[in-house]
Amino acid sequence: MTPSTRPLYHAADLERLINPKIVAVVGASETRGSFGERTLSNMSAFTGKVFAINPKYQTLLGRPCVPSLAEMPESPDCVVLCVARPMVEGMIEAAAAARAGGVVVYASGFAETAKPDRIEAQQRLIELAHRTGVRVVGPNCVGLANTRSGAGLNFMPDYAGMGHRRGPIGIVSQSGALGYTVLQGMERGIGFSHYLAAGNSCDVDVCDFISYLAEDDNTKAIICLLEGVKDGDRFLGAARKARDAGKALIVCKTGNRETSSKAAMSHTGTMVGSVVAYQTAISEAGAIAVDDLEAVLETASFFAKTSAPTRGRGVGILSTSGGAAVICADKAEAHDVALPALEAKTATALHQVVPDFGSVANPSDLTAEVLKTSETFGFCLDAFMNDSSFSALVMPMIFAHVSSSGARAPTIVEAADRTDRPLAVVWMNEWYQGPGSELLDADPKVCMFRSADRCFATLRAWFDWHEHRAPRCAGARKSLPSAEQAARAILIEARGRGVALSEVDSKRILACYGIATPKEILARDPAQAASAADQIGGPVAIKIVSPDILHKTEAGGVKLGLSTPEEVRSAAADILASAMRYAPRARIDGVSVQQMVLPGIEIVLGVKNDRQFGPLIAAGLGGIMVELLGDTTVRLAPVGDQAAHAMLASLKGHALLTGFRGNAGVDIDALADTICRLSELAHDLRDVVDQIDVNPVIASAGGVMAADALIVCR
Amino acid sequence: MTPSTRPLYHAADLERLINPKIVAVVGASETRGSFGERTLSNMSAFTGKVFAINPKYQTLLGRPCVPSLAEMPESPDCVVLCVARPMVEGMIEAAAAARAGGVVVYASGFAETAKPDRIEAQQRLIELAHRTGVRVVGPNCVGLANTRSGAGLNFMPDYAGMGHRRGPIGIVSQSGALGYTVLQGMERGIGFSHYLAAGNSCDVDVCDFISYLAEDDNTKAIICLLEGVKDGDRFLGAARKARDAGKALIVCKTGNRETSSKAAMSHTGTMVGSVVAYQTAISEAGAIAVDDLEAVLETASFFAKTSAPTRGRGVGILSTSGGAAVICADKAEAHDVALPALEAKTATALHQVVPDFGSVANPSDLTAEVLKTSETFGFCLDAFMNDSSFSALVMPMIFAHVSSSGARAPTIVEAADRTDRPLAVVWMNEWYQGPGSELLDADPKVCMFRSADRCFATLRAWFDWHEHRAPRCAGARKSLPSAEQAARAILIEARGRGVALSEVDSKRILACYGIATPKEILARDPAQAASAADQIGGPVAIKIVSPDILHKTEAGGVKLGLSTPEEVRSAAADILASAMRYAPRARIDGVSVQQMVLPGIEIVLGVKNDRQFGPLIAAGLGGIMVELLGDTTVRLAPVGDQAAHAMLASLKGHALLTGFRGNAGVDIDALADTICRLSELAHDLRDVVDQIDVNPVIASAGGVMAADALIVCR
Repeated sequence: MTPSTRPLYHAADLERLINPKIVAVVGASETRGSFGERTLSNMSAFTGKVFAINPKYQTLLGRPCVPSLAEMPESPDCVVLCVARPMVEGMIEAAAAARAGGVVVYASGFAETAKPDRIEAQQRLIELAHRTGVRVVGPNCVGLANTRSGAGLNFMPDYAGMGHRRGPIGIVSQSGALGYTVLQGMERGIGFSHYLAAGNSCDVDVCDFISYLAEDDNTKAIICLLEGVKDGDRFLGAARKARDAGKALIVCKTGNRETSSKAAMSHTGTMVGSVVAYQTAISEAGAIAVDDLEAVLETASFFAKTSAPTRGRGVGILSTSGGAAVICADKAEAHDVALPALEAKTATALHQVVPDFGSVANPSDLTAEVLKTSETFGFCLDAFMNDSSFSALVMPMIFAHVSSSGARAPTIVEAADRTDRPLAVVWMNEWYQGPGSELLDADPKVCMFRSADRCFATLRAWFDWHEHRAPRCAGARKSLPSAEQAARAILIEARGRGVALSEVDSKRILACYGIATPKEILARDPAQAASAADQIGGPVAIKIVSPDILHKTEAGGVKLGLSTPEEVRSAAADILASAMRYAPRARIDGVSVQQMVLPGIEIVLGVKNDRQFGPLIAAGLGGIMVELLGDTTVRLAPVGDQAAHAMLASLKGHALLTGFRGNAGVDIDALADTICRLSELAHDLRDVVDQIDVNPVIASAGGVMAADALIVCR
Repeated sequence: MTPSTRPLYHAADLERLINPKIVAVVGASETRGSFGERTLSNMSAFTGKVFAINPKYQTLLGRPCVPSLAEMPESPDCVVLCVARPMVEGMIEAAAAARAGGVVVYASGFAETAKPDRIEAQQRLIELAHRTGVRVVGPNCVGLANTRSGAGLNFMPDYAGMGHRRGPIGIVSQSGALGYTVLQGMERGIGFSHYLAAGNSCDVDVCDFISYLAEDDNTKAIICLLEGVKDGDRFLGAARKARDAGKALIVCKTGNRETSSKAAMSHTGTMVGSVVAYQTAISEAGAIAVDDLEAVLETASFFAKTSAPTRGRGVGILSTSGGAAVICADKAEAHDVALPALEAKTATALHQVVPDFGSVANPSDLTAEVLKTSETFGFCLDAFMNDSSFSALVMPMIFAHVSSSGARAPTIVEAADRTDRPLAVVWMNEWYQGPGSELLDADPKVCMFRSADRCFATLRAWFDWHEHRAPRCAGARKSLPSAEQAARAILIEARGRGVALSEVDSKRILACYGIATPKEILARDPAQAASAADQIGGPVAIKIVSPDILHKTEAGGVKLGLSTPEEVRSAAADILASAMRYAPRARIDGVSVQQMVLPGIEIVLGVKNDRQFGPLIAAGLGGIMVELLGDTTVRLAPVGDQAAHAMLASLKGHALLTGFRGNAGVDIDALADTICRLSELAHDLRDVVDQIDVNPVIASAGGVMAADALIVCR
């Protein structure tokens, strides 16, 4: 984990940049299609002052023009640089001299080229930003848009033509082009608060933009198109700030081809790659992950237009077609959304207008008959709205025509205004923008979807998000305050011998955190082994101890279930001989005589210290469940008791833990406790420890024991 | 399985109905919005003759009007009945008398009401259709449309206003409304050949419509919106006919909430419900299943516009944005679509125009620079088209503007015309119908998607579909021709004792088909058991034999691993006593002394005789893999050797069969052989057998043995 390089910018830090009163456009031009011309054109609806900066003109496209930033009559809040790369540094200096609040840098050709001199040039911009206190967006950036003030601080062609539709959705994007592709939802009526593209993010990045929008009263939901972040803590901080402000953060993370970490020395290191780390971080920070670009706007729009569910997790379906009702019911089941029965009064009301070939139920098929007058459909909608079983209503819209979808849209819009419950419309028609669609898309309360699957996936996310926003008990720390100091003492002593700690040292560190490990005695020779076995009592295992032998089984260095002193002596002698044959130059400390662990279910616990997000803790069932089926659960460390239990409950093989096919289950509380303790260890020692495998942990009804462990240092 | 009630209609049977030259509209009217008025209006572009039937007029909406069908000057090919339910029967009689080819019945209120008298009324329509030879569509049906002739034989408002865009996609739907919602893709430029709604399907059903379109030269891909079929064989026949004609059949099956079969006596019966049966049948008939309504048109359109892949499974991505390139690459990986490297000549060409902040690779980021002139983008597209590594090219389209998407569309359309390879455009913009989109949607060769995920899912389906269309070896029958007769003899004898056969009888039937079962001798008492054990040799198992005890373990009726005569005698005595305590009135035949099966991996095989599709064979790994994770594979019986191997290969736990973590694998050929034989049994005896569990089959490197079996009769 990279330490936090810089705290998040707050709204006040970015206010002049994002919500300027005075804008200067450097490199303003009247050449059609140039960055300068486009930027000036995109400011046409701006309510503040705009100055063109160009020594050749007095006025430009109707704006006052001054020769240079130094000659500005007032300090600009935001300076847009429509100049080529070599001029950027000088212009930022000039902006700073003019006491500007922020600068937008369009120019490309910096670090994205991966050329050393260009990376250096970008580094100089970072230093400039920090030295001057001027906030810099870009370089290699499309720019910003603020629909409230009409500031189109960007070079997209004809941005002003989209009409600055205001709405509660903010877009934050690294790729300006992708963000803009979502913003163009404006063309079908959807309103936005901001469009903020970060480009190369030399100074201001997506995390800062999220932080800004979390404080912005006009923004209710935030879309984040994310390629990656340098500093996981800043992303987590920004996401949590949005969540705490009650704003849904919809994250579409791109770049999900896992480049396998070849250097991973532990099993966990292989399993928990950076894609998993991002997924875990997004979910744990209370953000909503969305896999498809086409889902982000509908999802954000839903969250922006709704508040918390008020009547539990149930949804009512008003359909005018049996086929559409069935599709919605299928999707409700697929996404685990409940369809409670109608209340008696609702059924009674509906029976007045629904013909006998329809269906008065949930899902309902009101039939096309109820569309013959807008009153009849409105009557049915009212009946559903008066039913207290539903937190939301879903209306599939099939036939698109002015007389059908067109006529129904105003009824829905009017009804949405009267209720605190979301009215979701599933626009099933292949005529994407058929009659009524723009009225519904643009409405501040109606929630539009063009996919039944997405509608129900979003409803589920809505239920979950509001449930999980309720304050959760973090859980008290399990391990002793002194654990860290004791563990560090062992680490310091062990580190001298290599990055991978021995099993003995690894287990000693686990033991510092109160994780149960088998009794174990180091013996130098077969005789010492026999007396160690006697001291431990009961059957023992014997394993080779060498800092140079990582794979003990391969080296013939493990024997299990030894009961008599003779067995122990001869096994120890065999193992020592075998290890010396296997690795003649290995440093051999002796053998470890270990208490045999009682039979139970094999659990795999692990830690991976992610470069962006710090230590992640993983748990899974041993054997095929993890290795063949990838059935693992991952969280950011540390985790509390409740989270540890939730991790175990989320495993596909969870039934094996609670008792499957009559087998006794395991002591789940003890297993969750072990997870907490290991996560505390990972968090405490995150500056030193890179990966941990505790594989297997043997869990039974009688308790939990870490039978083997490997700690790999950074 | 219901026996085939009627063979599929062929094109010739339905030609007068679907492609009429002379149409009569009974109940024609000029009342705006009436079925009669709408139907006449929807015929406005029809190239044949239209007669209105109404005694009150001479002409109606410009069409000749005659008082009754009997007074028609010529025989109508198709008669559309815009009359209420009570008049339908009489009018079908009249149509038959006028020697009509087919009748479309709009009226609802028949079997869909589930009222006995209405179901009877529909039954009378069926009989009328069969007696008169007039083909009947409906009742409760929206009607048909034939874009080639302009025949809008339906009552949708303003169908004629959609412009009869002709194209290679046919729509077949039970729900007229859902089908129409897809057909309205016409409003954004997409062309169709037919829209055929079956409604209540008293005579002509979706299978017949598929059969018709399979023979129709204007149809290249068929969309089927399916609620369910009465007769699985007819659906399979129609789907295979489409596949054999080289036409992709895209099926969206709705109604996927599994109503659990409470009566299932076997494990397989619970696992393999009707949803699984439909999935299996759709896939095996060579159709393409699609889960979401919004996916059907894009998928069908792709297949309609393309032929087979010509350069393997590789795809090239031309992006003008790094972000979009990454999204496409993510989706390619998710759907297992290969992205081969560029050929050297392609890279050389691209380097001429792509700036240094772009990426000359696959996926490519050509950057927005190449959009500055249409020549540059065309040059890049040509370079990709000249690269022989790609069977298809994907172009994400991000910014929508006349100068961008609008300008690029003609270049793509022109290029598509010059190549045999699909050019797929992913329209990522939230402005669904932005500039250029209609040109691309309407183009006969360009393949449009509004989802990167769907684009790559379709590419994968395209590769798979063409690969699997190649003739596959069905595989020779494995079991003896005499097996069926021998098995039936046992069945006849055993059936008298109940629908669930005893383990002994079940295994005897398996043995007839050459499935290995343990040696087994029925013993009446402990002494006979001991001598039976001696005869079998080696350790044995003893199990209670009673037609009234299905759950032997619960009854204390199973003991394993008995070696000495004393052990056998005492175990048999215990079991008999225990069974009598457990079920004092049970008929007890004695105990079965069985050869102990060598240790191995537990496999579960099963058969479920589906009501629609006949016997399905299921296979899975025993224990948690099936029960906890639902890791099963299902096919229609019988299966050949190749299919049986494919079934095993598709299991998530397949690695356990081939040897996992150093364990020896099992004899896969023997296991596949057992699957084939069981499937032959299921197919031969499908009139008698309802469900079979062979659980477990013990598989090891040394072979395969059915350790337990349960056959349940119909």
